Amino acid sequence: MLTAAICGDVFTSPPVDSILAGIRAVTGPMGCLLIVMNYTGDRFNFGLAAEQAKSEGYKIEMVIVGDDCALPPRRGIVGRRGLAGTILVHKVAGAAAAGGLSLADVAAEAKRASEMVGTMGVALSVCTLPGQVTSDRLGPGKIELGLGIHGEPGAAVADLQPVDVVVTHVLNQILSSETQYVPITRGCRVVLMINGLGGTPIMELMIASGKAVPKLQLEHGLAVDRVYTGSFMTSLDMAGFSMSIMKADKKILQHLDAPTKAPYWPVGVDGDRPPAKIPVPIPPSRLTKSDEVLSRPQELNRQGFILEAAIEAAANAVISLRDNLNGWDSKVGDGDCGSTMFRGATAILEDMKKYYPLNDAAETVNEIGSSMRKVMGGTSGIIYDIFCKAAYTKLKESSSSLMTAKQWADALEASIAAVSKYGGASAGYRTLLDALIPASKVLQEQRLNAGDDSITAFVLSSEAAQNGAESTIHMQAQAGRSSYVPVEILASVPDPGAMAAAAWYRAAALAVKQKLQAS
Amino acid sequence: MLTAAICGDVFTSPPVDSILAGIRAVTGPMGCLLIVMNYTGDRFNFGLAAEQAKSEGYKIEMVIVGDDCALPPRRGIVGRRGLAGTILVHKVAGAAAAGGLSLADVAAEAKRASEMVGTMGVALSVCTLPGQVTSDRLGPGKIELGLGIHGEPGAAVADLQPVDVVVTHVLNQILSSETQYVPITRGCRVVLMINGLGGTPIMELMIASGKAVPKLQLEHGLAVDRVYTGSFMTSLDMAGFSMSIMKADKKILQHLDAPTKAPYWPVGVDGDRPPAKIPVPIPPSRLTKSDEVLSRPQELNRQGFILEAAIEAAANAVISLRDNLNGWDSKVGDGDCGSTMFRGATAILEDMKKYYPLNDAAETVNEIGSSMRKVMGGTSGIIYDIFCKAAYTKLKESSSSLMTAKQWADALEASIAAVSKYGGASAGYRTLLDALIPASKVLQEQRLNAGDDSITAFVLSSEAAQNGAESTIHMQAQAGRSSYVPVEILASVPDPGAMAAAAWYRAAALAVKQKLQAS
Repeated sequence: MLTAAICGDVFTSPPVDSILAGIRAVTGPMGCLLIVMNYTGDRFNFGLAAEQAKSEGYKIEMVIVGDDCALPPRRGIVGRRGLAGTILVHKVAGAAAAGGLSLADVAAEAKRASEMVGTMGVALSVCTLPGQVTSDRLGPGKIELGLGIHGEPGAAVADLQPVDVVVTHVLNQILSSETQYVPITRGCRVVLMINGLGGTPIMELMIASGKAVPKLQLEHGLAVDRVYTGSFMTSLDMAGFSMSIMKADKKILQHLDAPTKAPYWPVGVDGDRPPAKIPVPIPPSRLTKSDEVLSRPQELNRQGFILEAAIEAAANAVISLRDNLNGWDSKVGDGDCGSTMFRGATAILEDMKKYYPLNDAAETVNEIGSSMRKVMGGTSGIIYDIFCKAAYTKLKESSSSLMTAKQWADALEASIAAVSKYGGASAGYRTLLDALIPASKVLQEQRLNAGDDSITAFVLSSEAAQNGAESTIHMQAQAGRSSYVPVEILASVPDPGAMAAAAWYRAAALAVKQKLQAS
Repeated sequence: MLTAAICGDVFTSPPVDSILAGIRAVTGPMGCLLIVMNYTGDRFNFGLAAEQAKSEGYKIEMVIVGDDCALPPRRGIVGRRGLAGTILVHKVAGAAAAGGLSLADVAAEAKRASEMVGTMGVALSVCTLPGQVTSDRLGPGKIELGLGIHGEPGAAVADLQPVDVVVTHVLNQILSSETQYVPITRGCRVVLMINGLGGTPIMELMIASGKAVPKLQLEHGLAVDRVYTGSFMTSLDMAGFSMSIMKADKKILQHLDAPTKAPYWPVGVDGDRPPAKIPVPIPPSRLTKSDEVLSRPQELNRQGFILEAAIEAAANAVISLRDNLNGWDSKVGDGDCGSTMFRGATAILEDMKKYYPLNDAAETVNEIGSSMRKVMGGTSGIIYDIFCKAAYTKLKESSSSLMTAKQWADALEASIAAVSKYGGASAGYRTLLDALIPASKVLQEQRLNAGDDSITAFVLSSEAAQNGAESTIHMQAQAGRSSYVPVEILASVPDPGAMAAAAWYRAAALAVKQKLQAS
C-alpha cells in the first residue's frame, strides 16, 4: 500500500511544506509516486511539492485519481472527484513498487488502474465536523446520492429507498454506457469494493454487498472476482457507503492479491472473497425423531417393565405436585414451574404409551428428554433434555441394553455434570441440582461402601434428594431468574425446580423398590 | 479463527437444531470445539447440541467465555457476560487447532486464554433493532457504561465525558485489584483490543486507542505488545466501543500472530501494532528561503541586466492592468484577480531589489514563484509557483548559468505542462494557458523553422499570447471557478487570468527587445 500519508486539516489539502517533508522523509533512490485525489487544492499543493522535490533532485511521478461517476460527464478529468476507488489504485501501485518495478512503470500501472475504476457514494447522514454542530441539510427519510468525501453536498437528494433500489441505481450509474466512465462491458471480470463512510456498521455494508454481487453477475453480466467490504476511506462519522467497480485482469488481480502489511486491507482465501456460506441441510435429528422411527415393544422384558413403572410414578408425582410448584414459583419466579413440569410429565406419559422403546433403557431416557423439551419450551425444557442426553450418552457406553445399578449411578453423575457445566450452577446455587447432587453422592458412596444393595441405595438417595430440595429454603439464588429476588422472600419457600426433581426422583425410587420386591 | 459461526435471530441464541447442523457440517475426526459466550440461552442451546453430537459419536469440547468486567463480582462465571474478548479466544483457539493440537489441548488453550482477558464496553447510543423504533432510553449527553452486546441496558448511565476520562474509567475497571477479574499486575505484558460496537468510525476508535496505550504503559505499568483496533464484535449500529485487555505470553502472542484468512483480522508488522508515525522535521525549504540565503549581486552581468528589465516591465504591466482585471473577474469570478496579481507583481519588484540573484536566471525564476505564492495565496499563487518551479527545474538542467533562447522556450513548455498536469486544464479551457500555449507554440515553431532570430520569435509569440487571451471570450469555462458561470456572461469578457498572463508576457518580450537593441 502506501509508504506515507500526508494529513491536512479536516477536509483541507495538506500544505506544500508538509507534503515536501513527507517526500523527503520516505523517498529513496527509486523515487516517489504521489497518488492524489482529484480535488483542486490537492492537485496544486501536491503538484507544487512535486516540482519542488524534482528541483531538489528527487525522482517524482504523480497520478491523479478521479473515479467519481455521480456527475454528468465533462471534458477531461476536471469535475470527477477522487473517491474510494483510490484505495484500489494504492494497492495496485504498492504491489507494483514492492515487486521492484521502476518509478515510471509503477506510475503507469497506477494510472492504468485509475482508468479502470468508477465509484459512487450514497449517504444517510451528514458528517459531524469536530467542534461544530452537525448540519441538518439532510432531512429525515432522505438520502444524498453522489457525494464526495469532504462533507460536500451530494449531486442529488432522494427519498430513502430500500437498499435494493439504491444499489441498483449506484451500479447503473457507475456502469452507464452513456458516460462510459469505466471501460467495463458485459463479460468483463471486475472487482467490487463496498466502502463504509465512517458510521456504517459492517453488517449493513455486507447487506449492500450481498445485493450488489448478484446484480453485477445477473443484470450486468460481469464476473465478480473479488469483493472488498469494509470502511477503507471514510468521512468522519458519515452514515452511508460507496461502491467502486474496477475492471480486473490477471495483472490487477495479482497486485490486489499481493501480501501487504496495511492493517485494514482484508486478507483471505484467494484474495478476499467474502467468507463462504455453506448451505447446511438440517438432517432429521434425534431431537425430532420420536414416533416415526421408534415404537413401543410388543412385549416388555423385566427391565422395561420396571422402567415403565418408574417413569409412570415419577411423572404422576410431578403431576400431583403442580399447584404446590406453581405456588412456590409465584414467589421466586414467574409462577409457572408447576404448569411447565405438568406439561412435561403429561407428554412423557402419552409418548411412552406410543413409542418409547422401553426395553432399551438408554433410548428411553433419550426420548424422555425429547418429550420434555418438545412441550416445556424455554430454559427448563432444555435443561431436562441436556440432563437426559448426558445420561443417554453414558448409558450407551454399555454394550448391553441391560443396565446395572452402577451404570445408572454413573449416568446420574454425568447428567448432573452436564447441567452444571452448561448452566454454570453447582451445589448451593438454589437449583434442581441441590436435590440431585446429594442423591448422586449417596448413590456413589453406597455403591462403593455398602456393596450391592442397590435398591436400598436408590431409596436412601431419594431421601437425600428430598432433604436437599427442602434445604434450598436457606439458600441464596446464584443462577437463573431467582437471583434477582430479595433474600427475605427466598427464605420463605424452597426452590420449586429442586422440589420437582426430588419428587420425581423419590417416586421413581419407591416404584422400583415396589416392583422388585413384588417380582 | 473459526470454521463456522451459527447465527440465531437478532440478539437470540440459535436453536439447537441449527447448532447441531453446523457441528455435523464441519466436524472432522479431530473433533469440534464450541466457543460460547456466557449467556444462558447460548449455554443451554449449545450445551444440548453438544450432548446430542456426542451421543452421535462426535468429539466435542466447549469453552465458555465470560470476560465482562463491568458488574460487581459474583460467585463463579454466572453474571459475567461474554464480550469482545471472545474474539481473542477465537484467534488463540484457531491457531492452536491449525497448529495440529488435539481437541483437548485446543480447548485447554482456549480456556486458558478466556481466563486471561477482561473487557468493558461504553456506548453513546442505543442500537436500532431491525424494523423497530430505536429506544430513547439514553438521553442526549449521556453514555452507558458496562453493556452487553445484545442491546441490554448498561450497568450505569453517566454524563458524556471526554474520551480521556472514559478510557481511564474503563481501564481501571478491567484491571481493578478488588475484583481481580484478570490476572494482570504491574510489569505484565498485555494485548489491547479496541472494538467498535457498529456505528463508531475507525478514526474515533483510533483516538480511544491512542489514549489507552500510554495509560496502560505509564499508569498501569504494563507493556502493550499488540493493539488491535477495529469493529470485531458489533451490536448492529450502536455507537461506542469496548476495550479488552489480555495478559500476553509467548504462546498467546504466537497464536495471535499466526496467519489467518479471516478477512477482518488485522494483519501487519509484528502482528498489528498500529502503523508507525514517523516524526518528520520540516527542514528549511526552498519555499521559505528568500532573503536569508540569497542576495542581489553587487554587479549585474548582461543577462542579469536584461532579466531585470524584463521582470520590471512584466510586473508593471500587471500593476497597470489591475482595474481591468478586477472588472472582468467581477463578472466571471470573485472580482479580485487584478488585486491578487497586483500583490504578486508588487512583491516581485520589492523582493527583486532585495535579494533576487539576477545573474542566475534559474534561481531568479524560482524566487519569482516564491514571491508570488507568498503574497497571493490561494490557487493562483500556487499555480504561478508551480509555473516558475517547473521552469526553474528545466533551466537548472543547463550546466551554465547563461541561458539560450532554446532553453527559455523549453522552460516555458515545461511550465505549461506542469500547470496543465496539476490543474487538469488544457487549451480551450478558458484559463491562463490559453495565452501561454499559443505563445509557446510560436516559440517552438520559430526556433525550428526560422532559425536564430530569437528576439523576433519572442515578440511574435507575445502577440500570439495576446490573441490567445482575447479569444477566451468565445470559450466555455472547463476548469476553476468560472465553470459555474452562465455562458452568456462568459461571452461578454475575456478570461482575466489569460489577459494578465498575456500582459506580463508581452511586456517582458518588448522589454527584452528594447534592451537588446539598445545594447
